[in-house]
Amino acid sequence: MAHATIALLTDFGTADHYAGALKGVLLSLCPEATLVDITHEVPPHDVLTAALELAACYRYFPAGTIFLVVVDPGVGSARRGLVADTGDYRFVAPDNGVLSLVFHDTRPRKVVDLTERRYARPTVSKTFEGRDRFAPAAGWLAKGIELTAMGRPVAQWHVLEVPEPEVGAKRLTGQVLRVDRFGNLVTNIDRRRFELFRQDAGIQIAIDGRAVDRLVATYAEAPAGEVCALFGGTDHLEVALNGGSAAQSLGLGRGAGVRIDRN
Amino acid sequence: MAHATIALLTDFGTADHYAGALKGVLLSLCPEATLVDITHEVPPHDVLTAALELAACYRYFPAGTIFLVVVDPGVGSARRGLVADTGDYRFVAPDNGVLSLVFHDTRPRKVVDLTERRYARPTVSKTFEGRDRFAPAAGWLAKGIELTAMGRPVAQWHVLEVPEPEVGAKRLTGQVLRVDRFGNLVTNIDRRRFELFRQDAGIQIAIDGRAVDRLVATYAEAPAGEVCALFGGTDHLEVALNGGSAAQSLGLGRGAGVRIDRN
Amino acid sequence: MAHATIALLTDFGTADHYAGALKGVLLSLCPEATLVDITHEVPPHDVLTAALELAACYRYFPAGTIFLVVVDPGVGSARRGLVADTGDYRFVAPDNGVLSLVFHDTRPRKVVDLTERRYARPTVSKTFEGRDRFAPAAGWLAKGIELTAMGRPVAQWHVLEVPEPEVGAKRLTGQVLRVDRFGNLVTNIDRRRFELFRQDAGIQIAIDGRAVDRLVATYAEAPAGEVCALFGGTDHLEVALNGGSAAQSLGLGRGAGVRIDRN
Repeated sequence: MAHATIALLTDFGTADHYAGALKGVLLSLCPEATLVDITHEVPPHDVLTAALELAACYRYFPAGTIFLVVVDPGVGSARRGLVADTGDYRFVAPDNGVLSLVFHDTRPRKVVDLTERRYARPTVSKTFEGRDRFAPAAGWLAKGIELTAMGRPVAQWHVLEVPEPEVGAKRLTGQVLRVDRFGNLVTNIDRRRFELFRQDAGIQIAIDGRAVDRLVATYAEAPAGEVCALFGGTDHLEVALNGGSAAQSLGLGRGAGVRIDRN
Repeated sequence: MAHATIALLTDFGTADHYAGALKGVLLSLCPEATLVDITHEVPPHDVLTAALELAACYRYFPAGTIFLVVVDPGVGSARRGLVADTGDYRFVAPDNGVLSLVFHDTRPRKVVDLTERRYARPTVSKTFEGRDRFAPAAGWLAKGIELTAMGRPVAQWHVLEVPEPEVGAKRLTGQVLRVDRFGNLVTNIDRRRFELFRQDAGIQIAIDGRAVDRLVATYAEAPAGEVCALFGGTDHLEVALNGGSAAQSLGLGRGAGVRIDRN
Repeated sequence: MAHATIALLTDFGTADHYAGALKGVLLSLCPEATLVDITHEVPPHDVLTAALELAACYRYFPAGTIFLVVVDPGVGSARRGLVADTGDYRFVAPDNGVLSLVFHDTRPRKVVDLTERRYARPTVSKTFEGRDRFAPAAGWLAKGIELTAMGRPVAQWHVLEVPEPEVGAKRLTGQVLRVDRFGNLVTNIDRRRFELFRQDAGIQIAIDGRAVDRLVATYAEAPAGEVCALFGGTDHLEVALNGGSAAQSLGLGRGAGVRIDRN
């Protein structure tokens, strides 16, 4: 069996022992696995942020990586657990939409409802299924168990509603989905959609009704202290401030409207 | 020699280079070790929190794991360093009580006073023994050195005073020991003690004099915004708020009193 | 080829997927590498802090470690990328001075301008060269590619201006460069320079004009709540508060002046 990489994405934070407990469980099953933290700082119960962060980075991991995603406001309730195989990757997560952006990218080949008790810990806490159900499932996958052994195939799953941009003849309207550490306001407008809309016309960009004067290629191109627009690392339009935080400077965050008008 | 896992728990934070320096020292001695962060976010010098977090998760790690625990307000002073073996696990830590909850669980088989200079770095900083004494000891353990080579056996160690619940005929009184990232107020009342007290009688739970109406099995069972009680991942009674932070909503933290009255 | 260790130091924070994307890229190229986080919590764009944290810990890592350092306010601009070999270690970073304190310690044997396209990702984002240029270079180094294959040798690089202490006949003047998690105010005065200045004379230490009464060897030597001076883990003079934060108590931070007068 090949060397396993398991990447973790949770809302457990890093102050409590919760992420540590997950790692203990994973290494107990598969001591040779490489564990990678994507983040544990998803805001508590924020499934959309988790889905966006996962979708933004999973493709950079080596084929074969197992993603253990635990942002689970419905822990202990009837919501299902999913194990999914997209060909290159496998995912273990609650069925609350947290995987739906990945599935939008790459139709999964197999998805099962994680019910098989033998791949959970002997006692399953109703408040910490990350440790007792999801981490063990990821550990067993890493050990070589097939996901088809973990539960029955399912053909449907919870799909997250992610705001989509609206395209009119002369106006493209989107909104801010993520604010990153640098205060960049990352929108739901990707480069392809933007280019299709713009063609070669002149455009004006505005955020929350305020004009953004410059569309640049890199942060450093904008004068220090000026709000600008550019395409960030995930190829989505973002509003940024060279050398500062656009979010703080403009007082804006998730949900702020972005408008692009074509001449 | 088997593959070594070393789990780290400190109050060094993750912004400074301190935890990185520990990892460098560990890998210099044992390049193949798997290093796992439990947390570095223990509040500065908070030995009780460190002891609780460690006790809450060490059992989930693979047998053979070495725990390097550095929360050390007495760094450089006469307080001893301990290396302990509980059979399944080994621990390296200052003798300030940080291991005493683990030792309460599992009587250690061997404990030594870490004095042997050859298992420290050549120069030992009086302000950073984590790097110069404790990490090297953990690295040498991982490399296969016996803990008995590291110092003389000791039969006593510092025991942390942890508030215990008080059980009366009709009332069980406890207190909040930990507040986690989700704002759950985790008490010192464990499920076994609670069941022994409750028998099959009806009960009323109150925190800081305020009634908690519902004892539930999972967060999702409580109506959104209602304060409830349940047993969390460590099987201790906690006061929680479905979809929010009980700590913030109630304005309570460590030390808050919890009272259970039996009809 | 020996087992590779890659240590990461960035200002990406741990909430976004950015550090995770770097790790994915590294493991895609070199699945067996051991990845170590030094820190991702360098304040955004703070090259000096990154340089100081790196210089404070790189020596503790095993020989052969590759350091991937991405604090890059000039991302996407004309600033170069560097790959350097100091004999024991290799470094990948933007040419903005972030390596200059290491180079001050150990003259690098080889430094190249990272231009060779084949060691970058096929598409390079102008806003995320950490993922698309620097991480791939580190991954290829770990895989065994020589740094001389990655670009042309360069003989000069950006050197960070770091405030140096001023030594007079009777007065040594320095300043605070780092404030750590414990609130210790770490100055630019190292022990050697201090000893040379002091000789065996009596001294008075003051920070921001306020006398510091005691020079101690360990935090625990000072009475609780008293501001004291001592040499910390990097052997630089720091102003500290036993059991508390000197930075908070004094309301001081980077740039605060420290004065030592000799009798």
